[in-house]
Amino acid sequence: MNETYLELCKALDAHHRSLADVSSRALFAGDPQRFDRFHLDLDGLLFDYSKQRVVAQTVELLCALARARDLAKGLAGMRAGDELNVTERRAAWHVALRAGEDAPAQVQATLERMGNMVDALRQGRWPGATGKPIRHVINLGIGGSDLGPHLAVQALAPADAPLQVDFVAGLDAAEMQHVFNRADPASTLFVVSSKSFTTVETLANARSALAWLRAGLGEDAPLAQHLVAVTNKPKAAQALGIPAAHTLPLPEWVGGRFSLWSAVGFPLACAIGMDGFRQLLAGARRVDRHFYEAPFDANVPVLMALLGLWNTRWLGAATHAVLPYSYRLRELATYLQQLDMESNGKSVAVDGSAVEGDTAPILWGGAEPMGQHAFHQLLYQGTRCVPMDVIVIAGGGERERALFDNALAQSAALMLGKTLAEARDELAARGLPDDEVARLAPHLVCHGDQPSSTLLLPELSPYRLGQLLALYEHKVFAQGWLWGINSFDQFGVEFGKQMARTIAGSDDNAALDASTRGLLRARERLLRT
Amino acid sequence: MNETYLELCKALDAHHRSLADVSSRALFAGDPQRFDRFHLDLDGLLFDYSKQRVVAQTVELLCALARARDLAKGLAGMRAGDELNVTERRAAWHVALRAGEDAPAQVQATLERMGNMVDALRQGRWPGATGKPIRHVINLGIGGSDLGPHLAVQALAPADAPLQVDFVAGLDAAEMQHVFNRADPASTLFVVSSKSFTTVETLANARSALAWLRAGLGEDAPLAQHLVAVTNKPKAAQALGIPAAHTLPLPEWVGGRFSLWSAVGFPLACAIGMDGFRQLLAGARRVDRHFYEAPFDANVPVLMALLGLWNTRWLGAATHAVLPYSYRLRELATYLQQLDMESNGKSVAVDGSAVEGDTAPILWGGAEPMGQHAFHQLLYQGTRCVPMDVIVIAGGGERERALFDNALAQSAALMLGKTLAEARDELAARGLPDDEVARLAPHLVCHGDQPSSTLLLPELSPYRLGQLLALYEHKVFAQGWLWGINSFDQFGVEFGKQMARTIAGSDDNAALDASTRGLLRARERLLRT
Repeated sequence: MNETYLELCKALDAHHRSLADVSSRALFAGDPQRFDRFHLDLDGLLFDYSKQRVVAQTVELLCALARARDLAKGLAGMRAGDELNVTERRAAWHVALRAGEDAPAQVQATLERMGNMVDALRQGRWPGATGKPIRHVINLGIGGSDLGPHLAVQALAPADAPLQVDFVAGLDAAEMQHVFNRADPASTLFVVSSKSFTTVETLANARSALAWLRAGLGEDAPLAQHLVAVTNKPKAAQALGIPAAHTLPLPEWVGGRFSLWSAVGFPLACAIGMDGFRQLLAGARRVDRHFYEAPFDANVPVLMALLGLWNTRWLGAATHAVLPYSYRLRELATYLQQLDMESNGKSVAVDGSAVEGDTAPILWGGAEPMGQHAFHQLLYQGTRCVPMDVIVIAGGGERERALFDNALAQSAALMLGKTLAEARDELAARGLPDDEVARLAPHLVCHGDQPSSTLLLPELSPYRLGQLLALYEHKVFAQGWLWGINSFDQFGVEFGKQMARTIAGSDDNAALDASTRGLLRARERLLRT
Repeated sequence: MNETYLELCKALDAHHRSLADVSSRALFAGDPQRFDRFHLDLDGLLFDYSKQRVVAQTVELLCALARARDLAKGLAGMRAGDELNVTERRAAWHVALRAGEDAPAQVQATLERMGNMVDALRQGRWPGATGKPIRHVINLGIGGSDLGPHLAVQALAPADAPLQVDFVAGLDAAEMQHVFNRADPASTLFVVSSKSFTTVETLANARSALAWLRAGLGEDAPLAQHLVAVTNKPKAAQALGIPAAHTLPLPEWVGGRFSLWSAVGFPLACAIGMDGFRQLLAGARRVDRHFYEAPFDANVPVLMALLGLWNTRWLGAATHAVLPYSYRLRELATYLQQLDMESNGKSVAVDGSAVEGDTAPILWGGAEPMGQHAFHQLLYQGTRCVPMDVIVIAGGGERERALFDNALAQSAALMLGKTLAEARDELAARGLPDDEVARLAPHLVCHGDQPSSTLLLPELSPYRLGQLLALYEHKVFAQGWLWGINSFDQFGVEFGKQMARTIAGSDDNAALDASTRGLLRARERLLRT
């Protein structure tokens, strides 16, 4: 921790105190240029952070903090494919997957192979064991092998796509049955997606898929045409009966939560075609260039990271809400939960020392306008500061306009609030007697000052989704860098897997804690009755 | 705020300090009876809170706090149908909806009417305009008119139900299209569910549904057989063409987020039959009786409320995670977000004074084991205390056992943690050289002490779901009562609706803030290009 950094933190402490009693209304009243000053255009995607609790000096101090942490070194390291994942001594080079002509030869070769397979599938030139062409693609994967393609298929797949694409992630038989009920073994292809090819849930689902195919097509039917693997361990895939020709590689230097751009995106390419998939990569590539080259105070992902730091450390926000005004983006928060919380849910810096203060907030959210009728009450009148990203899409249709207007109304109202005097005036204007006005007015007060950024997309296309997701990837990386964290390992998750192996199949075992033992006994009792 | 209450808070402050350095491992080591002491059986549903950060004295002090707040008065008021919603001078009497033989006559009459309609629909005796029987029910509703029945249909509907039941909540045309694509106008029934019958989203969707029916069945086709309303304003439903015979009442004293038990549950009854729906009510009724009668220290919803208070106020938790190990309960957190955050996301006590300290946490979660591969990393190694409810279902199948074992493994590992010494031993046992052990060990440490409760359901049936949801309803009410909040109004949400009316259809308007104006201009520019 260098001295400049510590001094800047102190300066930010003092600066924060100076702003603490200034309302967001006052920030807007005091600066007619506030919107112009605090929004950016990134190739048509608009980022408005004027409703955040910042002034020009805040941004200057935060950018200085990024310089004191030598964030430029991080950016250069990502671009070059350095060993950013220092604990595991591995690169975190997902940007190479979308580098276009600059991509490594192996990446270009994989895209070429993916394209051939996708074209054959979409054009009905991929017969199953009975000769019927494949029409239905079911992805078996969990975490990074599920969330990215799942979100992107929901966001981008047209209703009349030549291939239906579904996802099965977990262990619950109900989830798998839900998809099997709508599928025909003769025309169904499974994509078994697991970097290590040891993921418990994915392998259990792959075994069930094989059994379902055999039950439908006959014990001796050749199943290779019904199987594709995406993995870093092609031999393990072969052991399951997936030929090398159907196995797409996932390089060691791609982390699961950054892998949509790799062959993990195969089901998405099936749903939108390879041209669409390449558009997604192009959108992300455009953001990569911006991230490498734009000065920090005009760099969208860097500003997103710095605002996140400001909101958690100085405003004390424990959570961050992602609110897309789009049904197609209804799983965006679920996707970003992994990206953000698995990357930066850490307490230890790369050098093994404890990180000072809090790191990643709880990321949550859901599709709007449903949240308006559910949890927005707490945003208005609860006791907690909740920074938000409001995501809106421009569109001229009546419903698109209504969604847009709703997004603007909520973020404005949450920022402006309603004072006691305004609540009184409103109740009096409704003709309520004075004592009722006095009784009710405190219940109508909204504190305001909820900070938000608005991301305005011109349309929801593969290119724009590529931009949006790359923005969050770089935000997460930059924020981890500012905290001194390695955003690319996940030792906590691995501890959970260890414990699962200890408990799996165990009975009442004296080495286990009393709660676990009590619950295991309770299950036994219930199963006996 | 009485003096006993303030003294108890001080006692809890001191008690909290005395526990602060005691690990959860030590709590278990120090009390071999810990599981027996801290779990309850409610008619076969097991509630284990032994992994919370409490000892016997904590529970005693918290129960004393509930007495100091006269929680018994709240319970009696709920049972009797008192005007608990004091700001709006209205009862909050959802328990009457499931009171069985003790229910008001109007409730019993509505259940009778629902039953007749549901039987006719499920038995193919409800023809549409062309004579084809109705086979598909689409619910149009948002917030409380969507989340409860939606969750319950996902949880309970069998794959071979005689009626398919779908839900459309929001404004995005993509959501409605997604359902229309799978529907046939001739055999589709819409349930328009809105207490006020003024909900913008629901009425927009009802108008689109009418247009879709007319397009499919002819301009002059009689549509009454394709429409059912659930509302407190039957005349407004009639104005839309829904006859009184197809309009089910929603009493004034039922809040939207507590309305699953009313005619709002009609789509659920379509999916599982009226016997199943009455089982759901019976499960809730069983919990109501427990809530009214059990002493506080053996009262599951009261303990859930008190533990929530302890975790937010004394442990400083800003969020609460709900983690069901069941795909069928995948929307439980979404449902509970409304129930909890809309009820208790308030800062003002019933008397208009400011509530001291924080109120409702951010409730979040999702279906497991997916979260294990996404956000659990933060629970293990992040910097935040995240209390959890882990929900598991007993079952003898291989996958059911695996889900159960996973649930136990995660909550145990999150409670026990991994020390630096253990991390070192583990790495040394893998044969790593000393310097690698020293370098990596800090990155493997998990702090432990994450508090959780486990709710073990013998099976996922209507009765058990009724129990589960009633537990949360009463938890929310009891917690609001302890904070002195009215859990039954939502003036913040109404402010959001006011602002939406101000912005709707407005152009660049000098009365609006600069951010809103800037974003409106940006939309105009994008639509012109």
